[in-house]
Amino acid sequence: MGGDRAPGMVVRGACLARERHPDLSFILYGAEAQLAPLLDCHPELRDACTLRHAPDVVAADARPSSVLRQGRQSSLWLALEGVQSGEAAGVVSAGNTGALLAVAKFVLKTLPGISRPAFASIIPTMRGESVMLDLGANITCDARNLVEFAIMGDAFARAVLGRREPTVALLNVGAEELKGNEIVREAAALLRESALPIDFRGFVEGNDINAGKVDVVVTDGFTGNVALKAMEGAARFYSSLLRSALLSSRRSRLGALLARPALGSLRDRLDPRRHNGAIFLGLSGVVVKSHGGTDAFGFANAIGVAVDMITHGSNQRILDELRALGGAQVPPPRAAAS
Amino acid sequence: MGGDRAPGMVVRGACLARERHPDLSFILYGAEAQLAPLLDCHPELRDACTLRHAPDVVAADARPSSVLRQGRQSSLWLALEGVQSGEAAGVVSAGNTGALLAVAKFVLKTLPGISRPAFASIIPTMRGESVMLDLGANITCDARNLVEFAIMGDAFARAVLGRREPTVALLNVGAEELKGNEIVREAAALLRESALPIDFRGFVEGNDINAGKVDVVVTDGFTGNVALKAMEGAARFYSSLLRSALLSSRRSRLGALLARPALGSLRDRLDPRRHNGAIFLGLSGVVVKSHGGTDAFGFANAIGVAVDMITHGSNQRILDELRALGGAQVPPPRAAAS
Repeated sequence: MGGDRAPGMVVRGACLARERHPDLSFILYGAEAQLAPLLDCHPELRDACTLRHAPDVVAADARPSSVLRQGRQSSLWLALEGVQSGEAAGVVSAGNTGALLAVAKFVLKTLPGISRPAFASIIPTMRGESVMLDLGANITCDARNLVEFAIMGDAFARAVLGRREPTVALLNVGAEELKGNEIVREAAALLRESALPIDFRGFVEGNDINAGKVDVVVTDGFTGNVALKAMEGAARFYSSLLRSALLSSRRSRLGALLARPALGSLRDRLDPRRHNGAIFLGLSGVVVKSHGGTDAFGFANAIGVAVDMITHGSNQRILDELRALGGAQVPPPRAAAS
Repeated sequence: MGGDRAPGMVVRGACLARERHPDLSFILYGAEAQLAPLLDCHPELRDACTLRHAPDVVAADARPSSVLRQGRQSSLWLALEGVQSGEAAGVVSAGNTGALLAVAKFVLKTLPGISRPAFASIIPTMRGESVMLDLGANITCDARNLVEFAIMGDAFARAVLGRREPTVALLNVGAEELKGNEIVREAAALLRESALPIDFRGFVEGNDINAGKVDVVVTDGFTGNVALKAMEGAARFYSSLLRSALLSSRRSRLGALLARPALGSLRDRLDPRRHNGAIFLGLSGVVVKSHGGTDAFGFANAIGVAVDMITHGSNQRILDELRALGGAQVPPPRAAAS
């Protein structure tokens, strides 16, 4: 029921996702009176779908705390319970991000050894793909949080991106050891001094994200959220400038016509819907958040991210990695983070 | 003497700047033995140039604290003294940023009413140009610092960008009042409750920067630095994808050939050298920092920024605005910032 164009967009997204993953089946949580007619329009989906009525819907602007108190009959809560009970292998929602995170933490709990889940997303880069986290689940973080994000990101890069030895770095204002605030310097010291089997490369700067300098970019939720959106805004700006430039003369319009297939593939590659689906890493269950404003194509991609997480057993990989650390526990911060 | 290609790049940059501003004259601080022969190669500049020998050079990786102790004979220090004595109207340097900021604060002092200077830069947007600050001078900021940045940014947008009623917002992870950390929420409350004559629009997100949603984007130096570089990296990524797309087939290469003038003007518009020159706002003197890796064209643009600041009397405008506040002093933070 979540998202600007729900529930129609969700149902159509599920149809698209099944075209790519024909074995996929769904449990749809929401208002039966709205969902049943939609399913009637998509007989190809109906047989792969179970409908579970949820009397309530979490509003886009509802406070997470009030959803925690009063949202037990909402589609969001019931869907997360479906994962908790093992009936569903993962959940995909385009609903209220804060509520999804709060209820997911409450219902699914964090993985043992992880104190705070983080929002992660796959970022297209000059060298392929990287993963960046946290993107907004944790507005303020201490050094230990960042170290945990590094562990989760490392496991994710192995499991989902298929990297054998992922490189990991902290996002900072400069590459030198003395740069930045106490928290990132402390986290860097912890990662350097720990026996964690992580290929830690120190600090990277904002421009290194899209350059693909490392496989895993670790940051706090405030900085990560701003940086991700700033990059999206820059891409949109660039593409609007390109459009006006190509429309500026008869000659350039002709050129654009000839280059249309090439420009089309560029547009496809940068289509934000293609990178839709942020992952809540660190929970005992697969939870993927779709952008609220997406369409069926974007939602299908978010479902694809969940399928990847499930197929690759990412959470088990994170757990294995945490367990493998064994003696090499994450060291406690040397000083209280300011 | 500062910058990867100094001092040759600086001298050539000065030549280029004089083509645009023929009345401009320079005092060059640095190693006379290196500068004199360079000037001999540029007789058109020699007559508009005074050479001041500086025995020392601040290394790119020198610590600001050690420059403060031992750098009094460096070109950086002597150039700032030139501004302090009134001999120069402003200074442009491609040298060590931290050292420049530290010595500038020490030699020039901050404007009365301003506790910390900030790094500002003009950002190209969908709607023209905006100014963003701080971009790295203050890694951690409290709410009052952000309010001061808002005042300085407002004055800059009036003086240099020519806005009559600049719109001002704080960079955050969402537009809603409850979003973000305590510091931005506190700063927003201060700006809303104050009698400051600022058109404060609340919060903007990362994607709003290039969209040009407001004229002045206010943030702490950590977030601002990461966001600015992330946007630069995204633009570089986009343009490299565009290049490969256009080279991908014979047909698209022909299209690119036809569109070449249009694409050239796009490249020019996004040329980072064109936006070279970050301003240290809040000092009693005009100080512009050029990117260390720039060339003569970029350095000439940084000189142009200083000329703009001087011509428009930006610092006087900031002072006037601070004075005009009079009774409407920046209110003290309601609680100690965490």
